[in-house]
Formats: sequence, structure tokens, C-alpha cells
Amino acid sequence: MSKALITDLYELNMAASYLQRAMVGPATFSLFVRDLPPSRGFLVAAGLEDCLQYLESFAFEAEDLAWLAQAGYSSEVIEMLGALRFTGDVHAVPEGRIILANEPLLEITAPIAEGQLVETYMLNQITFQTTIATKATRCRLAAGDIELVDFALRRTHGAEAGMAVARVSAIAGFVGSSNVEAARLFGLHPAGTMAHSYIEAFPTEADAFRAFTEDLPGPTTFLVDTYDSLEGVKTAVAVIRDLGLTGTLGVRLDSGNLAQLAQETRRLLDDADLPQVRIFVSGGLDEYDLERFRLDGVPVDAAGIGTHMGVSADAPSLDSAYKLVAYGDRPVLKLSAGKATLPGAKQVWRRSRIDEDILTTRQETGPAGFEPLLVPVMRGGRRVGPPGTIEAARQRLVRDLDRLPGAARDLHVPAAPAVAVSAVLRSLTDDVTAAMRRRIGEATQP
Amino acid sequence: MSKALITDLYELNMAASYLQRAMVGPATFSLFVRDLPPSRGFLVAAGLEDCLQYLESFAFEAEDLAWLAQAGYSSEVIEMLGALRFTGDVHAVPEGRIILANEPLLEITAPIAEGQLVETYMLNQITFQTTIATKATRCRLAAGDIELVDFALRRTHGAEAGMAVARVSAIAGFVGSSNVEAARLFGLHPAGTMAHSYIEAFPTEADAFRAFTEDLPGPTTFLVDTYDSLEGVKTAVAVIRDLGLTGTLGVRLDSGNLAQLAQETRRLLDDADLPQVRIFVSGGLDEYDLERFRLDGVPVDAAGIGTHMGVSADAPSLDSAYKLVAYGDRPVLKLSAGKATLPGAKQVWRRSRIDEDILTTRQETGPAGFEPLLVPVMRGGRRVGPPGTIEAARQRLVRDLDRLPGAARDLHVPAAPAVAVSAVLRSLTDDVTAAMRRRIGEATQP
Repeated sequence: MSKALITDLYELNMAASYLQRAMVGPATFSLFVRDLPPSRGFLVAAGLEDCLQYLESFAFEAEDLAWLAQAGYSSEVIEMLGALRFTGDVHAVPEGRIILANEPLLEITAPIAEGQLVETYMLNQITFQTTIATKATRCRLAAGDIELVDFALRRTHGAEAGMAVARVSAIAGFVGSSNVEAARLFGLHPAGTMAHSYIEAFPTEADAFRAFTEDLPGPTTFLVDTYDSLEGVKTAVAVIRDLGLTGTLGVRLDSGNLAQLAQETRRLLDDADLPQVRIFVSGGLDEYDLERFRLDGVPVDAAGIGTHMGVSADAPSLDSAYKLVAYGDRPVLKLSAGKATLPGAKQVWRRSRIDEDILTTRQETGPAGFEPLLVPVMRGGRRVGPPGTIEAARQRLVRDLDRLPGAARDLHVPAAPAVAVSAVLRSLTDDVTAAMRRRIGEATQP
Repeated sequence: MSKALITDLYELNMAASYLQRAMVGPATFSLFVRDLPPSRGFLVAAGLEDCLQYLESFAFEAEDLAWLAQAGYSSEVIEMLGALRFTGDVHAVPEGRIILANEPLLEITAPIAEGQLVETYMLNQITFQTTIATKATRCRLAAGDIELVDFALRRTHGAEAGMAVARVSAIAGFVGSSNVEAARLFGLHPAGTMAHSYIEAFPTEADAFRAFTEDLPGPTTFLVDTYDSLEGVKTAVAVIRDLGLTGTLGVRLDSGNLAQLAQETRRLLDDADLPQVRIFVSGGLDEYDLERFRLDGVPVDAAGIGTHMGVSADAPSLDSAYKLVAYGDRPVLKLSAGKATLPGAKQVWRRSRIDEDILTTRQETGPAGFEPLLVPVMRGGRRVGPPGTIEAARQRLVRDLDRLPGAARDLHVPAAPAVAVSAVLRSLTDDVTAAMRRRIGEATQP
């Protein structure tokens, strides 16, 4: 897969035009989410690392250029595209921080063709990864003491998506992932038990349990619901006793009324004097199931969270935008119905509570005690500082969650905090809008 | 990214156990969707091509094996994994065919470790691509004479997802894609216009329109809503006249009340004696918007369909399963609450109407006039026949849509046709279930 051609055709057309007419003035593009889905009271920033990797290595390869030639682009344009690298500056909100509607997640200042060509990939990665990081965080908030493991790979939108889901769910506080390649590449704890097929491949469930512990020493979680969940628990108990198993042991419930089965399973295990055997649940779980387990005190120790988290089933995308806000020395905006934008490079300032955020122009200094959310992450096309880690992003999220009002954390009818707009940014918006309307008025005079 | 490690940890654990105890008997796994989402009356099979490519080249690389060693797998297991290739047989429903709940999309017969290791990728690709192909087909059914273009790349779950979305939307009948790399790799028609940023980068909208037509001769679609849609249309008209533009021309509406704006835009264009200038709409559209345009006779010629199609926003996943149905000469099943399966390799038979489908054992011959849906696509790990094309899949879909009852095509409250189960398969299921229950009973006797 080419990298530079993972873009929308119009980016190439616009870039070709800019390059041909030597429009190389610096442009600033701002990436933000217009409105949160009704079920979301906050978002968790993610996707920046993949964006920075993309920008650092952005280049058209020989075969890309050959395709562009046969598609009709002029040799002059193709030569300029061949030489083009990303040389811009990037300010961004670090991964793991909580952000709200209209708060820029990323701002790029670069020669306009460069800023335009990378639009599609920036939107793709940040929209998707922020969507999933937010959903995973909701699951984590709901779960209380229940440990969560990413089980999503089989239902994510492709393998690349599965990798990102494993990574951002770790940022959200999941303790492991079933995705082996993600465990390898990101240093996550690989997690997994056994499938129903394994049980069925042996003459009896007990045979399967015995074989598994023999062949794979170490922590074992017995899948007990292939034929009958509570009979399966009894079989697991018998095998644990027969073989004198010790160490980390568990049973996994994957169907039926999990809350009720967990209660009965706990009783069976405790009656068998096996209080250390953990109960692991899975099967189409989401944050609402987890919340119910927590509120009802269901004795669940850990849960595998798959599809609902991995595709963010109730809100699988965000209303994100990547908008030109300045070109040359001129702040710009669009006035499109319901999609009007604010002009110029920006900053977001945050104090101790997230319902006090202030959106300002980039030049402004925030009030005392406020910290800026956007930080320089790339200068002249090179990263500022080393790549971000999952652990650092996790720490940022933990800190920001502490500052998030309860109403925004509510899973059912959340109230997203409002973001204040500084007087300077408001007056700039008014001025640019007025100037724009004057110009349109003049342009449409006969 | 490794290929063989794009899997769930439990697949590796089970495979290790199977290999260690020389369980190499052929196993048959069946991939199907348990229940359709309530808003779906049918599904469109997709994802097979990527699955076959994966199976053909399945292998653990040196660095995969190194990771497995440090993760604790025995050198014996690692040696066997290193030598392992996919050597199985695959029967599958070709891409583009309509399928229903419980109809296998793909069945693999292979040494059990092989069939197990590939589970995660098979489920991932077929679930995701079938989800999107179905959503895109709903859009295509809704749109009537309106041409559709894939605009989803910026909001798909990653770049790999964007590639698959472009491909399956072409199977559904979309006429082009904004995704340049997909156009290049799959031979699709690349489609695109200009962004608001382009308009804003010039002093006036008219300057931008003129520059674009100068720099990019050929078909042009003017984006008219940056400042005011109808004023934008007038500007486009003036530029078309001033420059004496001919050829394929259009205007794109991207915000506001699109139905109303399209009516007014058509009037402006017709009054300007420009009936050939097409109206292109975009902006958060789904099948319900398209249906309304069609039913209300809104003069829309083409539409860009993005997020809603690209993530299948209302049903972003499917309740898919990949289940062991036979091991050695023994058909198997699971009895889990709400997730019980049917044993043995299967076939689906279809006649002239899709509400007459019959699910049978693989050995049965369907009634006269019925054709089998599952066909051999791989034997001994090698493909049977050349790779499938988008065009062939498109033809299959067109043919199957003709045979789909109106109630299943309904966008609002669809009724998915029922699938009959043959007497032989029903009696096999009863026999295996009874044998299973006997065995469990015996196993749990004291």
C-alpha cells in the first residue's frame, strides 16, 4: 500500500493547483470535532503517534508518480510532488488527554500543498482512534474493580484497526489484549483462554481441561459454557483438585445470564474451597453491562471486551473536521450552514476542572493557573522529543479523568462541559466574518 | 506487521496443544452470522479475497518465532509452528452473493491447528467487509438513478479499512471512490472535487473556481457552499459562462437543507441554460437521505457517501461466529445458551427466490433447480481458479438482488427471509445433541 496515495483525490487536485501557481504561503489547518455524539460527555485524544510517523516519512514513491502521470497530472506537477516532503510545524493535544467539542486536537502549519495532502490521513487516524479510546475509557470507568482485557480483534474493521484498538484500550487502562501482534509490538500483556472448539475436539470437557493444563503450564482459565456452564464449573473444580493445580486459575463464562451464573459459580468455587479461582466473563459486553455488574456487586474479576468497544458500536465515528483557518497572514473561515468555523491558529487552556476550558487564539496567554493543551510536537517536519508512550498517555488520562465533572462521566445521559471562547477569538471571528461577507458582497455585485 | 501473529492468543495456545499431542485429524470450521441486525433484511458476502490471500501466504516469520520463544512456548512447538503452512480445503460463498443468518459464508477443512490459527483473521475480514458491503448495497438500493461515490476514507477505521470500503462499495455499485490508492490498486474510477480550504485560499470564490479550471482541465465540480450555497451556484454559472467551459461540469452542495438547495440550484442552472451541469451532494448522507431524494424527485445527479457507509454507522458489526463443526469423523456442536450450533460441513441451496434457501449437510444434493451457494475456492492450501474480480462480484449481487423479496429489501422494517433446514441436517443435529448430552451425563457421574 502506498502511503502518499492513501488520500482523497481532491487533496491531490488542490495540491497540484497550489504547486503550479506557486502558492507556497504557510497555511494553518485545524483538526477538531464539531459536536460530540449525544451519548458522549468527553473524548479521549488518540491517534497522534501514527499521524506523526506518517508525516515524518511522507513521500511519493516512484510507482505513485507513475500512476499520477497516467492519471493525467502534468510532468511539472509530478516533479514537484516527487520532491515534496512534509516540512511543517505541528501542535497537538497529547494522547490520553480529555478533549471536548471544538477544541483542536491537532494544528498543522505548513506550505499549503503539504497541509492539504495530509488531511485525509490525519482525519482518518485521529477520528478513529479517538472514537475507540473514548469508548474504551467509558468501559474502564464503568467497570470499577473488574479488570478488562481487549478481545476485539476478530470484529474490528480490519487488522490495522485491531492493532490501534489494542493500543488505545491499553491507554484507557485495559490490562491486556488477546491480539498477539499488538502484544509483541506495543509490549502489552497477551491474554487468552481457550475456545469452545478446543473443548469439542476432545471426547469430554474434563479431557480438554486436563490436556490444556498439561500442555500449557502457567495461568489457566477454563472455558466452562460449551455444554452447560455450572456443570462446566464443577468439571473445572474436579480437574483443579485431581491435578492439584495451583497458581493463577480462572473460569470463563461466555453465554447465558452472566450475572446470575457468576453468582452461582462463585458459590460453587467457594464451596469447593477455591476462593482464589477467578471468574472471567465475555460475550458481547459493553459499558452498561459492566456498570450493572459493578452496581449489583456481581462477583466478576475480569472481563473480555470485544466488539462493542472495538467498533465503538453505539457511536462508531465522530463529526471531525480539518479546516483551513489561516493562509499567509490572513485568518480565514467558512460560513457554511451549520458548519461555520473559527479562524486562526488556536490554543486551549485548562485549569483544575475540565468544565473551565477556554479556547483562545494561539498568541494569547491563558489566565494564571491554566495550562495549554496543545503542545509543539513537530517543527520543520521533525518530531520534537521522542515518540509518546502508552504509559505516559495512560497517566495523562488518569489525571484528566480526575478533573472531569461527574455529569460528563455519566454513561447514560452525559452532559459535556461547555468550552468558553476568549474575547479576542470572538472578536477575531466577528471581524473575519464581516470582512468575508463584505468581500462576497463585492464579488457578487454586477 | 506480522501476519501469523495477527491472531488471538488463545488460537496459539490451542494450536500448541494440538501440535504437541499430534492431534492432526482434519477439522471443519464454519463461519456464519448468527442473527442479522434488526435493520438488515439480508447481507452481502465480502472479504473472501483477502482471506484467501492470507491463507495462501500464511507462515510464521523468524521474528514471530523469536517472540514466541521468549513468551514461553517450547522449542518443539516453535519448530512445528515454523514449518506450518495452511494446507486445507476451503468452501465459500463467492463475494457479492446475498446471504442470510446461519448460512455459512466460509468453511475450512484442515488439520485442526491450521484451522484454529486462522480463525481470528477469517472472522475479522469477513465480518467487517460483509458489514460494509451490506450497508453500501442498502445505499445503492435507496438511491435509484443517483450515482454514488465512496467518500469514506477520512472516517473509516484506519487506512486498511478505507481500502476495503472502496472495494466493497464498488461491488455494491458505487461508480467511483475518492480513495486514490484504492483507485490505483483496484482499477476504480478516482473521484473528487475541491475542499472549502481551496476556496478560502483565494481572495474570492470566483478566483478559486477560475484557478481550478485553469490548473485542472477536464471534468470539474464546483464546491459552492463555502460562504452561501446559492450565491456560490451563481458564481459557478458566471465562471462557466465567462470561460466558456464545456464538458462534464457540476456543482457540489455540502451543507444546509440539501433537498431544497438542490431544487433551487437546478432552477438557477436551468434558467442559465446550463441543463447539463450536474448537481452533486455530500455531507453525512445515508440510505434514508438517498431514499427521500429519490421518492421526492429531488434533482440530485450524484452523491458522495462517506462516514455512514464507511463505518456502517447504524450496525457497525455482525454477530459472526467461526465454529468447529466436525473433528476427525465426528460431527460436533456446542450447546451454549443462545449460541448452540449445527454440526457438520454444510451447503446452502438456492432457487429463483431467496426466501426458499435450504441449509443442508455438505453431502446432500439439493432439490432439482436449486444451486449450491458454497463452492470450492481452495484445495490443499492452493486457490481453485484465479482471484475473484470486483466486476464478477458485482454481477452476482445484481442477480441475487433480483431474487430478493421486497420485504427483505425494505430499508426501514425489513423482514429477513427464513432459511429452511433439511430433514437430514435436523436429524443429525438431534443425534449429535443427544450423544453429547449422554456423554456429558456419563462424564459427570460420580
